[in-house]
Amino acid sequence: MSSLPTGHFIAGQQSHAGTQTFQAEQAESGEPLAPAFAEATTAEVEMACQAAAAVADEFADLPLARRAGLLEAIADALDARADAFVARTGLETGLPEPRLRGELARTSGQLRLFASVVRRGDFLGVRIDHGDPDREPAPKPDIRQYQIPLGPVAVFGASNFPLAFSVCGGDTASALAAGCPVVVKGHPAHPGTSAIAAEAVTEALQQLKLPAGIFSLLQGERHELGTALVQHPAIQAVGFTGSQRGGLALQSLAAQRPTPIPVYAEMGSVNPLFILPDALAERAEAIATGLAASFTLGCGQFCTKPGLVFLPRGERAEAFKEALCSHVEAMPAAAMLHRGILSAFETGCERLADMPGVTRLAAGQTAPGLATAQVYATDLATFRGTPGIAEEVFGPVTVIVELDDVDRMHDVAQGLEGQLTAGLHGTDAELAASRALITLLGQRAGRVLCNGFPTGVEVGEAMVHGGPWPATTNSRTTSVGTRAIERFLRPVSLQDMPEAALPAALQSANPLGLPRLVDGAFEAGSAGT
Amino acid sequence: MSSLPTGHFIAGQQSHAGTQTFQAEQAESGEPLAPAFAEATTAEVEMACQAAAAVADEFADLPLARRAGLLEAIADALDARADAFVARTGLETGLPEPRLRGELARTSGQLRLFASVVRRGDFLGVRIDHGDPDREPAPKPDIRQYQIPLGPVAVFGASNFPLAFSVCGGDTASALAAGCPVVVKGHPAHPGTSAIAAEAVTEALQQLKLPAGIFSLLQGERHELGTALVQHPAIQAVGFTGSQRGGLALQSLAAQRPTPIPVYAEMGSVNPLFILPDALAERAEAIATGLAASFTLGCGQFCTKPGLVFLPRGERAEAFKEALCSHVEAMPAAAMLHRGILSAFETGCERLADMPGVTRLAAGQTAPGLATAQVYATDLATFRGTPGIAEEVFGPVTVIVELDDVDRMHDVAQGLEGQLTAGLHGTDAELAASRALITLLGQRAGRVLCNGFPTGVEVGEAMVHGGPWPATTNSRTTSVGTRAIERFLRPVSLQDMPEAALPAALQSANPLGLPRLVDGAFEAGSAGT
Repeated sequence: MSSLPTGHFIAGQQSHAGTQTFQAEQAESGEPLAPAFAEATTAEVEMACQAAAAVADEFADLPLARRAGLLEAIADALDARADAFVARTGLETGLPEPRLRGELARTSGQLRLFASVVRRGDFLGVRIDHGDPDREPAPKPDIRQYQIPLGPVAVFGASNFPLAFSVCGGDTASALAAGCPVVVKGHPAHPGTSAIAAEAVTEALQQLKLPAGIFSLLQGERHELGTALVQHPAIQAVGFTGSQRGGLALQSLAAQRPTPIPVYAEMGSVNPLFILPDALAERAEAIATGLAASFTLGCGQFCTKPGLVFLPRGERAEAFKEALCSHVEAMPAAAMLHRGILSAFETGCERLADMPGVTRLAAGQTAPGLATAQVYATDLATFRGTPGIAEEVFGPVTVIVELDDVDRMHDVAQGLEGQLTAGLHGTDAELAASRALITLLGQRAGRVLCNGFPTGVEVGEAMVHGGPWPATTNSRTTSVGTRAIERFLRPVSLQDMPEAALPAALQSANPLGLPRLVDGAFEAGSAGT
Repeated sequence: MSSLPTGHFIAGQQSHAGTQTFQAEQAESGEPLAPAFAEATTAEVEMACQAAAAVADEFADLPLARRAGLLEAIADALDARADAFVARTGLETGLPEPRLRGELARTSGQLRLFASVVRRGDFLGVRIDHGDPDREPAPKPDIRQYQIPLGPVAVFGASNFPLAFSVCGGDTASALAAGCPVVVKGHPAHPGTSAIAAEAVTEALQQLKLPAGIFSLLQGERHELGTALVQHPAIQAVGFTGSQRGGLALQSLAAQRPTPIPVYAEMGSVNPLFILPDALAERAEAIATGLAASFTLGCGQFCTKPGLVFLPRGERAEAFKEALCSHVEAMPAAAMLHRGILSAFETGCERLADMPGVTRLAAGQTAPGLATAQVYATDLATFRGTPGIAEEVFGPVTVIVELDDVDRMHDVAQGLEGQLTAGLHGTDAELAASRALITLLGQRAGRVLCNGFPTGVEVGEAMVHGGPWPATTNSRTTSVGTRAIERFLRPVSLQDMPEAALPAALQSANPLGLPRLVDGAFEAGSAGT
């Protein structure tokens, strides 16, 4: 591990301008991990942002095939570092090898998916309204619209997905796909992982002879680093995954800039599940097994962890709870990402345990420095009278809310805050009869899922990983799936521009083979096929 | 005129709960115009918002053909009131009959255009990723995405387009097209116009037997009305066209809500024009004629009025200025929308006249209570040293900036704030050689136009009437053209939902004939054809 680069990656060069350093800690023991990494200075923020700004136009103008090639080269370079990630990221995060290999496959897979989106070209949103010089009372102008990249994007690495939501994660992949240079602030809990990922990007840029300023990584644990990055005038948008406090602080900073910029912050949620009576009667044990696996997956450190479960009281609920408890009690204690997160988890569980009307149903095994899986239970009256129950506790804990009357589910859903996901377990007949509830859950969440569990976010064309406030700062976007690219684009119209002055994407002959809306009719295009 | 309804239109009913009233003024004379209109109370804001919330689900679920039919019925009902608008709106705004008839045609035309968008169904953004239960290492879920309406939208009527950007203007048309109920705060300068438009919407809703709560109009001149509306928990988004002060105040209110909501504020700009040397040599007089007509159109009261013109100093510039001055000197004085706007215009012109290095080149005719068209001129050094020159003065005034070196245009464009539009006059050869400048202008503006003038915003599929801050609060959207509908929609995914529980838009058989992205490939659909 001594070969890990300990400086910042600024436009392809290692930088060590400052004197302060910081170290990661081994997730379980809290012991410092060598080496010490440089803490970025304000001058280094300036260098990275200026380097990004300097190449923004060149990157935006790059042929789509070359932009797609960059994403694929980064994917390949990441995959080639699988063993290095498993070794270092495992130490930094406590995540086990199978999870890390799976997360790496997701990370390189989403880079390749965005490459296919870039090649297809629909993200350019080309629209052409032909002019008509003879129109009365006034000639109709020729107007052509497409989407252009916003410019340099600041990405904040998340602690809970050190690969898929960090240096080369979904925010970076979608910003690069949009044609925006990226300056990453690495998460201070996994600087070695960040360095390995940054090496991969740097290698890909060099290999393709692309401008190095397209990517920089700044390391550090001081808040001032993130503040300086968001305030830098070159930065045009921010991608963030993490706590509500962190996301709102960045949004507030961004709104106070002389020129405000959008902050796409995904801040987590409690991801309620609703279990309908016939489904509970048919498969209480199976649902309990699935729930136990889901809320403890990755030690409960998923934005989509199901933290609240509503079900009808009764005999089947007892069977469900019994099955759930027996799974949980057998659950080994597990390492959390770092000791600060473990401490916050334990505080959150103590707060739940102290709430009148809330009882701890079951707890898993305990071990020093590790997290114990826990299940709590309460009734509807207590849930309604205790707003803290609906607050996210990050880690392996879930709360069962038993309802005397299943018809109250609609009211309960009505009262929910914005969520990333909401789930519904029902028989086919129950689900077909639950359209109103499904519609309502869609109004409360970015994704509504049936007879499943929300952890494990599929990366695809149709995914929404987003949702109404306070799950995110912008319900109209997603941070996972191909529509994530839209966050970093904006439309521009060109009016009465001669062909010779038009960008290739808007030329009449469609040299890029793009899908287009021409005079209100769709043309499929031939790109990406 | 005594038959004008003087109360608020709340879900189809006239309401007169308060005791305060206000009156419009005749634009030119400032004389009060009968009748007195009721000033909305907080209770009336509550009633209108609750009525909107109560019907939001029903409206969202309405078959697309019926939603489109509503837009068309409103268009017809507006057109049927053309004479009433000409009579009343002319008094309230001072705008001449041909302009009002043209603006009405645009207003009903854009409602019909949005009806065609609703029928076509592409705004629903349907995406289907089929599942694969056999995928390793984990089954692939079936995920289907579409766009749902945000919910009730508050629309603030603008003073400068009493039809096209007011009660039934672009914000209302696009919000209704998205399936969102609308609560309008009418502009207090034209309450009679607002009442006539609200009657048209109410009639259309009744005729189609649709829920009356889909539309309400609240009248008033107190700031508290707008504040209460933006703060109401039922309101999910805000559309606004007007001053920067107004737009930023609404955005700040919206951001401070317990649940923040998006504010789409279009706040105007100076719309710079750049005239390249060969174009100036070829057609100085023609450009001067076009500019004179454009910056005085509607008495200069357009968001897109060209307020800043950059051109190379020299003989042709002299000819250009001479032609421009002779047009402007012959320009009759004209009525502004109301006396407050006239007073702000005069103050703005005095401020320009007092700036050292800025000279008044020409002024049109004068008359008491009317606005005088004016042209100012300066050089690049003064422009750079005097930030106030680049601030919008609403009304018939423009500033010519002469450059000693035409190569400075790129630097000038680089220094511009965000704009709604930027224009470029050049020969074909000049334009073909100006791609870098065109790209830069696209980074500074929502629309870049060639050899034309920005006033007169074409309503179509490809239009962008938006742009970077401070022209708008959200550069990723447009307030004119069919993409305006996207402001009021957000994506939701449904995962592993049985067919019987899916909304029609997402069913595999595609009963609505919608265009879709299925497993990454486009299907054209048959809707709207």
